[in-house]
Amino acid sequence: MSKRDFLSAADLSRAELDDLLDLAARAKGKRPGQVLAGKTLGLLFFEPSLRTRVSFEVAMVQLGGHCINLSRDDLYELEPQEQAVMDGAAEEHVKDAARTLSRYVDALGIRAASRTGGWDKDRQELLVRSYARHASVPVINLETCFEHPCQAIADVMTMRENLVSMRGRKLTLLWCNHPEPKSLGPTHSVLQLAAMMGMQVTLAHPLGFEVDDQVLQRSKGLAAEAGGSVQVVNDLRSAAPGAEVLYARSWASTKYWDDPEREAMVKRSLQGWRVDAALMASTNQAFLMHPLPVRRNVVATDEVLDGPRSVIYDQAANRTHVQKALLMQLLKQGPA
Amino acid sequence: MSKRDFLSAADLSRAELDDLLDLAARAKGKRPGQVLAGKTLGLLFFEPSLRTRVSFEVAMVQLGGHCINLSRDDLYELEPQEQAVMDGAAEEHVKDAARTLSRYVDALGIRAASRTGGWDKDRQELLVRSYARHASVPVINLETCFEHPCQAIADVMTMRENLVSMRGRKLTLLWCNHPEPKSLGPTHSVLQLAAMMGMQVTLAHPLGFEVDDQVLQRSKGLAAEAGGSVQVVNDLRSAAPGAEVLYARSWASTKYWDDPEREAMVKRSLQGWRVDAALMASTNQAFLMHPLPVRRNVVATDEVLDGPRSVIYDQAANRTHVQKALLMQLLKQGPA
Amino acid sequence: MSKRDFLSAADLSRAELDDLLDLAARAKGKRPGQVLAGKTLGLLFFEPSLRTRVSFEVAMVQLGGHCINLSRDDLYELEPQEQAVMDGAAEEHVKDAARTLSRYVDALGIRAASRTGGWDKDRQELLVRSYARHASVPVINLETCFEHPCQAIADVMTMRENLVSMRGRKLTLLWCNHPEPKSLGPTHSVLQLAAMMGMQVTLAHPLGFEVDDQVLQRSKGLAAEAGGSVQVVNDLRSAAPGAEVLYARSWASTKYWDDPEREAMVKRSLQGWRVDAALMASTNQAFLMHPLPVRRNVVATDEVLDGPRSVIYDQAANRTHVQKALLMQLLKQGPA
Repeated sequence: MSKRDFLSAADLSRAELDDLLDLAARAKGKRPGQVLAGKTLGLLFFEPSLRTRVSFEVAMVQLGGHCINLSRDDLYELEPQEQAVMDGAAEEHVKDAARTLSRYVDALGIRAASRTGGWDKDRQELLVRSYARHASVPVINLETCFEHPCQAIADVMTMRENLVSMRGRKLTLLWCNHPEPKSLGPTHSVLQLAAMMGMQVTLAHPLGFEVDDQVLQRSKGLAAEAGGSVQVVNDLRSAAPGAEVLYARSWASTKYWDDPEREAMVKRSLQGWRVDAALMASTNQAFLMHPLPVRRNVVATDEVLDGPRSVIYDQAANRTHVQKALLMQLLKQGPA
Repeated sequence: MSKRDFLSAADLSRAELDDLLDLAARAKGKRPGQVLAGKTLGLLFFEPSLRTRVSFEVAMVQLGGHCINLSRDDLYELEPQEQAVMDGAAEEHVKDAARTLSRYVDALGIRAASRTGGWDKDRQELLVRSYARHASVPVINLETCFEHPCQAIADVMTMRENLVSMRGRKLTLLWCNHPEPKSLGPTHSVLQLAAMMGMQVTLAHPLGFEVDDQVLQRSKGLAAEAGGSVQVVNDLRSAAPGAEVLYARSWASTKYWDDPEREAMVKRSLQGWRVDAALMASTNQAFLMHPLPVRRNVVATDEVLDGPRSVIYDQAANRTHVQKALLMQLLKQGPA
Repeated sequence: MSKRDFLSAADLSRAELDDLLDLAARAKGKRPGQVLAGKTLGLLFFEPSLRTRVSFEVAMVQLGGHCINLSRDDLYELEPQEQAVMDGAAEEHVKDAARTLSRYVDALGIRAASRTGGWDKDRQELLVRSYARHASVPVINLETCFEHPCQAIADVMTMRENLVSMRGRKLTLLWCNHPEPKSLGPTHSVLQLAAMMGMQVTLAHPLGFEVDDQVLQRSKGLAAEAGGSVQVVNDLRSAAPGAEVLYARSWASTKYWDDPEREAMVKRSLQGWRVDAALMASTNQAFLMHPLPVRRNVVATDEVLDGPRSVIYDQAANRTHVQKALLMQLLKQGPA
């Protein structure tokens, strides 16, 4: 029996994305049901989580199913390397964990977003992809340093709720300053899905904070197919004018991936890269989005985050709904 | 839609307390039901817990609902200060966590009992009250250093089961020695509820271990309204005679809140403040209560804890029942 | 009301084992049901776990019940010693934790496999047995350093599925090298149950890695009653020939229980004790078993673990089924 994973925004065709969004919109108004009664979703979190953890557990509960939560402390160290001679710290191979869990649960979700080496290595998402290869049940990416596709579907759902039509609409993905180097996952995933929807995307960041080139090229291709566009700008003043959606988020430099202190030094001169009322005023009455958690008064001011154009909690709330749709599709069930 | 929190024993009127106790008594004999099917209660524990955690989860299961458990390790650090510039360790503001969780779960319970500064600060219960202010769903206090109202309702239920009528009955709240400075939560909460029930309360502790004066004055007022009384005694010999309920529990000195070593030094001469058979014999055949966990043979001897007048496990068991009643009321559902 | 614990393979009679295996086989084909609706199983893990934790939680979910998971971090330190004066680190006595939990949950499972002292002490399984003595609900051993009976029933179920008849069939329990000193639990438990089934068991290990003598003598007695046998061999070449099941697993030396460095030194010359294709070829087309987690290419090679005679994932999968049977029996419920 073949199985379907959900690891990347790029795993979805436009038709599949539309189906998911439609199903999520229908799920949003529904009362709790039982379509996944007796089904279990294993959640493996190798890093802390609030929205992803709680929204998935609520999604399963509202479908009558159950989440089994495992965190780093519940588990021993796992070996991801094929053919390894396991005489080191790892007690079990990812292969055996994945195959065993596949005999217990109906789907697996995994968050593994820590940096473990150079960017060339981490961009391969070894742990999540190794689980997916060896598991016989669907595997869902709950965020790596490279993608966060569940967040991005909820983001697109939130844009669609507010803009109604999406083709040709202007979205700015804005890099913001932040005391820590953050995952590129949400940015990579929402960039691809916004492109797929045919939006006119402006990716705005300082030099040195380029996104992954493969993701950028793929996004340009997707946008071209769908009647949209992707352009990159490197000065803050070009970022906001015309934007109908301003999506703020910090991300790490892949150039300094191995050297967070160097990145921190570079960022000292980039403190202007943040969202405030003046920047919002220069947009085309944009909705303000951010995937949370957000550093208030660093990434964006209280005034704009709590202002009338902010839809940040709707993004969070829509996580539950898109994940209910996703779980129903992956577990081959009809709608509730 | 307005929402109702449950943060303090003082949040209840006498009529509401009576209703809760009646509903809990009816819930006690019931088989598991489904009145909260599809409902979720988020539990946030910033400190370890056995009774509170398990009794709430069992309560939700027996009502057909579900608990989502988050502990300190599942979460990142949260900022409680309004308008903070979040360039420090905190990844997310309490405001955003509370608003986000309100979009996922139907109620939130929070334990945050650690000391974080001086008594003047900690008595304000900043974290729990900040959650309550920002959450749009009911917030339940699962113990702060100032109150532990769920414990206290279970305690009053246990007294009512054993004494039948409560007005005018003699309760001694007895400070006991303990190697560590303990929360004042259970003492503050049960003092207020016992006063509200019109009991004759004797609060017995050594000098230097006074409870919060606002709580004491409020309790005296409640007792006066209900035909009872609250008196404070500072010698052990006056504590037990006449008591029909002896409620043992240690608590920290608010005077030495910042200086646990000083408190430990003071307590060296207070080792007689404990419950043994001789003390029990000097009561009016009192029931022995303690909210657990108890340091055996320090706070109270094995002989009395395991003796025929001990109702310590009934107190624990009643947690489930009062919390079922509370959850049904807060979530605006009828009885099972 | 009397209650039944499940602490040791030796707690089962042959008739009870047969009943459990039959019930498990029937449970295996069943769809999720509701026979344990409203029932809760408390799981206390003092060490990490993957299979035991997930298979028990799935078992409860598929029976309509619920697991409440507590790990070391959720709890404070517990005192196991009777009559202790609790002025040390422990906040609560095991007795009070067990009695309290008994008022909340319908059964308790406990993993406590860490070494805490000499072998003479650890072989007594003090923590689990103390819980069992004080709890008024059934207590299940989820692995100590001495027994792992749930694993062993799943192992016997897997052998029965593959061999059909078991009496007189040849099983080799093979000690394997490993960088760490491992629990004797799985070995002790499967040895006793295989003996009870009348198998011809060869226990193969280097000198110095003897199993507990009481367990060995009891197993010989059980085998004799059931028409089987237990023999011990200390050279690797005698281990495999004739075997129809080769059960690989490392275990610690009880001689060096207090001195892991000494054990590690001894094991340097024992690296030949592992399973590879040559060893498998010398058996009577044996099935390969291992209770997992397994150190690949140390305990056994990838080739044999992933080969056609390996049934390691079936063992893991059968954990769910035998535990469903066990839970139905302990909670006095009929089959689903």
